[in-house]
Amino acid sequence: MNWIREHLSKPEMLASLFWIIVKIILIYIVARICIKIADKTIAHMIAARDKSPLKFDRRRTNTIGSLIHNLIAYTVNLICIMLILGQVGLNLGPLLAGAGVLGLAIGFGAQSLVKDVITGFFIIFEDQFGVGDVIQIDSFKGTVEEIGIRVTRLKSWTGEVHIIPNGNIKQVTNFSTYNSLAVVDVTIPHHMDIDDATQILKETVKHVQDLTEDIVKEPEVLGVQVVGTTDLKIRIIAECKPTRQFNVTRLLNIEIKKRLDSVQIETM
Amino acid sequence: MNWIREHLSKPEMLASLFWIIVKIILIYIVARICIKIADKTIAHMIAARDKSPLKFDRRRTNTIGSLIHNLIAYTVNLICIMLILGQVGLNLGPLLAGAGVLGLAIGFGAQSLVKDVITGFFIIFEDQFGVGDVIQIDSFKGTVEEIGIRVTRLKSWTGEVHIIPNGNIKQVTNFSTYNSLAVVDVTIPHHMDIDDATQILKETVKHVQDLTEDIVKEPEVLGVQVVGTTDLKIRIIAECKPTRQFNVTRLLNIEIKKRLDSVQIETM
Amino acid sequence: MNWIREHLSKPEMLASLFWIIVKIILIYIVARICIKIADKTIAHMIAARDKSPLKFDRRRTNTIGSLIHNLIAYTVNLICIMLILGQVGLNLGPLLAGAGVLGLAIGFGAQSLVKDVITGFFIIFEDQFGVGDVIQIDSFKGTVEEIGIRVTRLKSWTGEVHIIPNGNIKQVTNFSTYNSLAVVDVTIPHHMDIDDATQILKETVKHVQDLTEDIVKEPEVLGVQVVGTTDLKIRIIAECKPTRQFNVTRLLNIEIKKRLDSVQIETM
Amino acid sequence: MNWIREHLSKPEMLASLFWIIVKIILIYIVARICIKIADKTIAHMIAARDKSPLKFDRRRTNTIGSLIHNLIAYTVNLICIMLILGQVGLNLGPLLAGAGVLGLAIGFGAQSLVKDVITGFFIIFEDQFGVGDVIQIDSFKGTVEEIGIRVTRLKSWTGEVHIIPNGNIKQVTNFSTYNSLAVVDVTIPHHMDIDDATQILKETVKHVQDLTEDIVKEPEVLGVQVVGTTDLKIRIIAECKPTRQFNVTRLLNIEIKKRLDSVQIETM
Amino acid sequence: MNWIREHLSKPEMLASLFWIIVKIILIYIVARICIKIADKTIAHMIAARDKSPLKFDRRRTNTIGSLIHNLIAYTVNLICIMLILGQVGLNLGPLLAGAGVLGLAIGFGAQSLVKDVITGFFIIFEDQFGVGDVIQIDSFKGTVEEIGIRVTRLKSWTGEVHIIPNGNIKQVTNFSTYNSLAVVDVTIPHHMDIDDATQILKETVKHVQDLTEDIVKEPEVLGVQVVGTTDLKIRIIAECKPTRQFNVTRLLNIEIKKRLDSVQIETM
Amino acid sequence: MNWIREHLSKPEMLASLFWIIVKIILIYIVARICIKIADKTIAHMIAARDKSPLKFDRRRTNTIGSLIHNLIAYTVNLICIMLILGQVGLNLGPLLAGAGVLGLAIGFGAQSLVKDVITGFFIIFEDQFGVGDVIQIDSFKGTVEEIGIRVTRLKSWTGEVHIIPNGNIKQVTNFSTYNSLAVVDVTIPHHMDIDDATQILKETVKHVQDLTEDIVKEPEVLGVQVVGTTDLKIRIIAECKPTRQFNVTRLLNIEIKKRLDSVQIETM
Amino acid sequence: MNWIREHLSKPEMLASLFWIIVKIILIYIVARICIKIADKTIAHMIAARDKSPLKFDRRRTNTIGSLIHNLIAYTVNLICIMLILGQVGLNLGPLLAGAGVLGLAIGFGAQSLVKDVITGFFIIFEDQFGVGDVIQIDSFKGTVEEIGIRVTRLKSWTGEVHIIPNGNIKQVTNFSTYNSLAVVDVTIPHHMDIDDATQILKETVKHVQDLTEDIVKEPEVLGVQVVGTTDLKIRIIAECKPTRQFNVTRLLNIEIKKRLDSVQIETM
Repeated sequence: MNWIREHLSKPEMLASLFWIIVKIILIYIVARICIKIADKTIAHMIAARDKSPLKFDRRRTNTIGSLIHNLIAYTVNLICIMLILGQVGLNLGPLLAGAGVLGLAIGFGAQSLVKDVITGFFIIFEDQFGVGDVIQIDSFKGTVEEIGIRVTRLKSWTGEVHIIPNGNIKQVTNFSTYNSLAVVDVTIPHHMDIDDATQILKETVKHVQDLTEDIVKEPEVLGVQVVGTTDLKIRIIAECKPTRQFNVTRLLNIEIKKRLDSVQIETM
Repeated sequence: MNWIREHLSKPEMLASLFWIIVKIILIYIVARICIKIADKTIAHMIAARDKSPLKFDRRRTNTIGSLIHNLIAYTVNLICIMLILGQVGLNLGPLLAGAGVLGLAIGFGAQSLVKDVITGFFIIFEDQFGVGDVIQIDSFKGTVEEIGIRVTRLKSWTGEVHIIPNGNIKQVTNFSTYNSLAVVDVTIPHHMDIDDATQILKETVKHVQDLTEDIVKEPEVLGVQVVGTTDLKIRIIAECKPTRQFNVTRLLNIEIKKRLDSVQIETM
Repeated sequence: MNWIREHLSKPEMLASLFWIIVKIILIYIVARICIKIADKTIAHMIAARDKSPLKFDRRRTNTIGSLIHNLIAYTVNLICIMLILGQVGLNLGPLLAGAGVLGLAIGFGAQSLVKDVITGFFIIFEDQFGVGDVIQIDSFKGTVEEIGIRVTRLKSWTGEVHIIPNGNIKQVTNFSTYNSLAVVDVTIPHHMDIDDATQILKETVKHVQDLTEDIVKEPEVLGVQVVGTTDLKIRIIAECKPTRQFNVTRLLNIEIKKRLDSVQIETM
Repeated sequence: MNWIREHLSKPEMLASLFWIIVKIILIYIVARICIKIADKTIAHMIAARDKSPLKFDRRRTNTIGSLIHNLIAYTVNLICIMLILGQVGLNLGPLLAGAGVLGLAIGFGAQSLVKDVITGFFIIFEDQFGVGDVIQIDSFKGTVEEIGIRVTRLKSWTGEVHIIPNGNIKQVTNFSTYNSLAVVDVTIPHHMDIDDATQILKETVKHVQDLTEDIVKEPEVLGVQVVGTTDLKIRIIAECKPTRQFNVTRLLNIEIKKRLDSVQIETM
Repeated sequence: MNWIREHLSKPEMLASLFWIIVKIILIYIVARICIKIADKTIAHMIAARDKSPLKFDRRRTNTIGSLIHNLIAYTVNLICIMLILGQVGLNLGPLLAGAGVLGLAIGFGAQSLVKDVITGFFIIFEDQFGVGDVIQIDSFKGTVEEIGIRVTRLKSWTGEVHIIPNGNIKQVTNFSTYNSLAVVDVTIPHHMDIDDATQILKETVKHVQDLTEDIVKEPEVLGVQVVGTTDLKIRIIAECKPTRQFNVTRLLNIEIKKRLDSVQIETM
Repeated sequence: MNWIREHLSKPEMLASLFWIIVKIILIYIVARICIKIADKTIAHMIAARDKSPLKFDRRRTNTIGSLIHNLIAYTVNLICIMLILGQVGLNLGPLLAGAGVLGLAIGFGAQSLVKDVITGFFIIFEDQFGVGDVIQIDSFKGTVEEIGIRVTRLKSWTGEVHIIPNGNIKQVTNFSTYNSLAVVDVTIPHHMDIDDATQILKETVKHVQDLTEDIVKEPEVLGVQVVGTTDLKIRIIAECKPTRQFNVTRLLNIEIKKRLDSVQIETM
Repeated sequence: MNWIREHLSKPEMLASLFWIIVKIILIYIVARICIKIADKTIAHMIAARDKSPLKFDRRRTNTIGSLIHNLIAYTVNLICIMLILGQVGLNLGPLLAGAGVLGLAIGFGAQSLVKDVITGFFIIFEDQFGVGDVIQIDSFKGTVEEIGIRVTRLKSWTGEVHIIPNGNIKQVTNFSTYNSLAVVDVTIPHHMDIDDATQILKETVKHVQDLTEDIVKEPEVLGVQVVGTTDLKIRIIAECKPTRQFNVTRLLNIEIKKRLDSVQIETM
């Protein structure tokens, strides 16, 4: 053991040892600081959830908080240990390769999470839609209830809540930006005179605008849309306030039906 | 062999050897500790399964436990051996490359597992749905029976259990958050007066609310939804308690049918 | 050549040579052991196949066994040669790059195999379904015959065997966990009194429960499901033992038909 | 501590220390400059948004601005710290590996963002469509309202706004580049003479061109398109101004109907 | 040039040169051996093709053989040259990067080939189906003609040959493992007595078993499957030999039709 | 500071400094040249666009030109700075890792662009279709207007322009390579004699060839294609010039209708 | 500058410089040879195209030839310059990283090209189909006109040419390998005797074989395929020469129709 003592007492060796110890202490301190910051952020998030209008279960929030704390603490400590081992001079190649497999799986598995966040950011940044707008994503239509950083929640008119990850939002249709157009195809029998029918419809729709504030411009009779084998379809359009087109369509249906009945025409 | 002995007895060589041996012992100890921790975690998980309300076969649980133990022990020992070989000075490049192919396959193959876990975490974190909620995922609708970290189990109303990996949950529709809307389209013949029909329907639906506690607001007669060639459809909506809309629809069907019969109208 | 001899006789060179030879021998021995272990595992697997209830062709099993032996032997020898070449000091970068291309292709190609195994493990671990359960995967429905680590075999009721790789199992519907619900929609003509019809149906279904042990709870008459243009549909549900709902439906069909005939009602 | 002082006072050590400090100061300055440039760019973008014709909420814009500022500042500082640590001599392999997992996830998650921008650039570069054109992407048809670098906005004729990420634009159909073709299939009864019918239709369509400026070339009667069991369909085409074909179709429908009525032919 | 001669004549330089030349010769010899082995394997494969029952064009086989020979020879020589250049001391980074791009493309492009082979191996190993079995893959149904390591060939009953890469085999349905079930739904008019009809059908099907050896168990009359608006459907099932269900169905159709005719019942 | 001066005045240090400065100047010059070449190429491309028959907006072209100039200038300068920093001795690992994330995203995002260009190259190289050909890609059919290196433009017969990225061209159907086949299924009543009908049709179609130059070979009467419940369909085919089959079909329809009318047969 | 001259005149420096210059010259020569070989290959390919039976435009071929020449020349020169710079001692990390992004994009973008070539090779190697065979790929059916290394060309019976990249060929159906089966379902009224009908059909089909050489085996009457509500369908099959089944079906249709008419049976 004599030569070891001699060897270790050489100044270069000592200086090297000194540096290694300094670095290890540095690594340890940085790791502590990282965990502290993470804990503060978690506490902040839990407080934000408590204040949020959506009611979350307090107990579940705490469980998740401690779960995230553990996850971060384990990860930071692991990296810390590996950095220290690296300083001591262990060749960590195989360990890193093992971690690489895990990392590959996590990286691939997390890509849709990242995509959700990126898309969510751009939805807000580009102001694609806001809370309260009526929008449609794929076959899901409803009023936007919440635009989160990961998911968007829609409430359909029949009361269901659709929860859609932002990354799955390929095309958005926003019904609340501009006035809507109510489209009514009135069926008239084949033997009827087109000009007469058009005239009657024009008079009827002019009068409908007074019944509701939803129509913003006088409805228009476009003409014969379809020539069927036993009847014709005349198209009427009416510009109305955003998302009010179904109400206007129902109103037009009633009024046109009444008028056609009153002029003794069997519209079918 | 003389020169070898001489060579090996040089202090630098000895110091280097000393360090290598220290490192190998260190690696061995860390490997032992890792396996110990893994074993404890497995025992913990088996105990948790035993206590779980879902009944698992004891024997199968034990089989799986020892299978996981073996898997971890083999992996840790393999990495341990490779680390030691690395200390001895073997160039492990080709071996690592071979492991890399395996790792690539495992990393890719495991990505959907990771995705399941990440999505599962966010479903719970964002409180998208809870046990007991009626939800729909793709075409699978049912009551949530269990939200696991990897799969979600739904029980449909006809008794099937749908098991869906969380990573496959693209869009969720939650029926239990808000009141539902029962929608009934009543068919009336074309020659009937719309105002009369609307009046009768209004009286009928007002009276239905007293028959059930499922309806939370007086049903509403919206107007003429469709003008068909031989009949009209008048739409009635009724806000009712979550997921009770089918019962309310059936009740409305019966009451409207009875009433229309009683006023001697053939509703078709 | 003089200087070479001198050069080689220097102690550092000799020590280095000595180490290289030690390492090469070490590599060779480890490679031999690996192949031995692989051979034992193969023999074990062949024996397991022989004992398996599914009958495998003996000759084919042997062919596959020797095929796997060759594959492993070639791979281990190749890595062994490359490790030894690496010790001798050859720069194997280009060779490894070539192997990398192959490895990339194998890694990608094998990912679905890995996914199959991982998913298979979780199907067993989470007890999603067991042998003998009736399950549905996509459009394939049948009784589970075997849950393998790579594929699941279902036997449909008409005798086909569906073989589905576990990695392709996205959603599972298990019919054997809970009681099933038989749903019968009885058509009655429009002019018939609803209360009378409901009363008759209630009496009929009460009596059906005595005819079979498949029904576990008295069937229930829910109400008017659909109001068609010429008839009504009244829905009846009956909770019955798992997967017995089709038998119960047939039985209910017969009994209701007989009863409605006997009370001289033309149900159509 | 004596040897350390001695060791550190050696000129090589000092020179090395001097270089390290110079490099660290350099890194710090470059980091400061990067953040300054980023801040200026953000201020520029906010100003551009304020001037944009699309109205953005001022408060939201500021929130996003400070969010991006923080994101960039954190990233630059992190890289700065890692570069300095690298100069001090810490082996950052494990840290970089950790960052690699994050980077992999971000890289994969961001790929659709990059694809959007690249496709957006080429849409503008290749002049595929311009603002005001009527185009169709998948099933979304409308007038182009805005071609952004990431999304394209279409306004449909019924008032909805479709927002489509550029990367999802696979095939574009542009209706505004060339004249459109109105296609009308006139149904005539089977017993009618084809030459007579063709003659009448030819006369009718010749006269239609005078009624509207939308038709740019005299409509053409092509011939018998379909021989059905009870009637024939004769096809008429009319070249008209881009996107005006529906108006022309309606006009042709009316005129042909009137003419056929006037020559006392029941076209069905 | 003097100093160069001096420089080169130093023993270290000479020893180094000696080693380099030894390595280059080693590389060359290994490369020659590799090509030799490849050529033998090719010759072996060509011979195997010649003996194969499937007739291959001799000339085409030779063309392919020399094509593969060239491919391997070029690749081995290229790697050989690069290894030698690496020994000479050229930094091949850029070259390898260029090869990496090619390798990436090849690796990705070849992944489906690897997947085919892996899946093919498991189809044979797990004995999913054998030559002569009737199986269905997606919408392709037929008798297995050949299970190759890359593709599977099915011959449909109408004579087409379906060639399906093994990697595209997601779900296999094997019709030849178990007995099949022939299912016949007999339509009887609504007014007929169910018990009578059931009785007649039972007698008929009992007698059918004697007519054919395809039925392995006496057919069973299950009951009323569907209650239609004008008729009932009674279901009969018959277990028969694998893939013989269509013959049995035809036979049952004829016998039931004759019997129902003979008892003077108009089954429709 | 004395030792620093001493240290720096050592010849090795100075030589090293000299080399570094030479390399930095070299890097700077190469960077300048690269930007110059890029600018020339851009100017060339703008000039080409000006001369192109498709009219591009001059102002937009200039905007794009300066945009590309800036993009290249920034990139080259960035790489230039990083190369110089690398010469100074900064460890750029973390910076490169950061760039790697960006690069990964860009590499993935740009892959469809590369695929477009590669496929475009092969479409031209293999002469799959040319400008003026009528082709169909997926559901988009039209005359090829332009085959670009990134997109292909089709003009449909109704005037729309379909713009399809080359990478999305999976299958191409080219209608302009060979003569087309017009297929007409003539419906004749069930009671009519087949031989008579065939004879009449043969005479009719022989005469049609004289009416048009589109038919290149005498039409053929194939036989009874379908035996329906109340009529038969006899198939006639006529080889005609590419893409003229619809005209020929219309002509055949008219002639056959006239002939069948003239021989007093009601063709149904 | 004195010390530089001194420094450079040291023999080690000179020897190093000498080696560098030798390597640079070597690199230059290899680059020249590569371009020469590439040019010869291009010339060879152009000559092959000129001789090819498919007519290619000479001018276009030349354009493509010079385009490929330029592409290769630029790439080789670029790599050549980078290799030389690497010898001079420039750290090319950042440059290579930049090239890596490009390489990643190209590698991914080119993968479908590589897949096309690999699949094309196996189609030819496995003799899946040959020129002149009638095959179906997805919904594209036709006669194989050309099997290229990248695309396969089919000519449909109506004259279209389908061009399908080999990598998109998932399942191939080959109609030309075996005899086809013509399947005719003859409809007979419900009241008709099955045995009589079968007898008549048997006599008819026996006689049909004499009319055509397409039928290779006497047609077979299988039995009652479907029992409809008003009629029965009796199935007849006839083995015929590959791809001739439609002709045989038409012939059978005619003969059976005539025979049934002649025995005064209204086949419905």
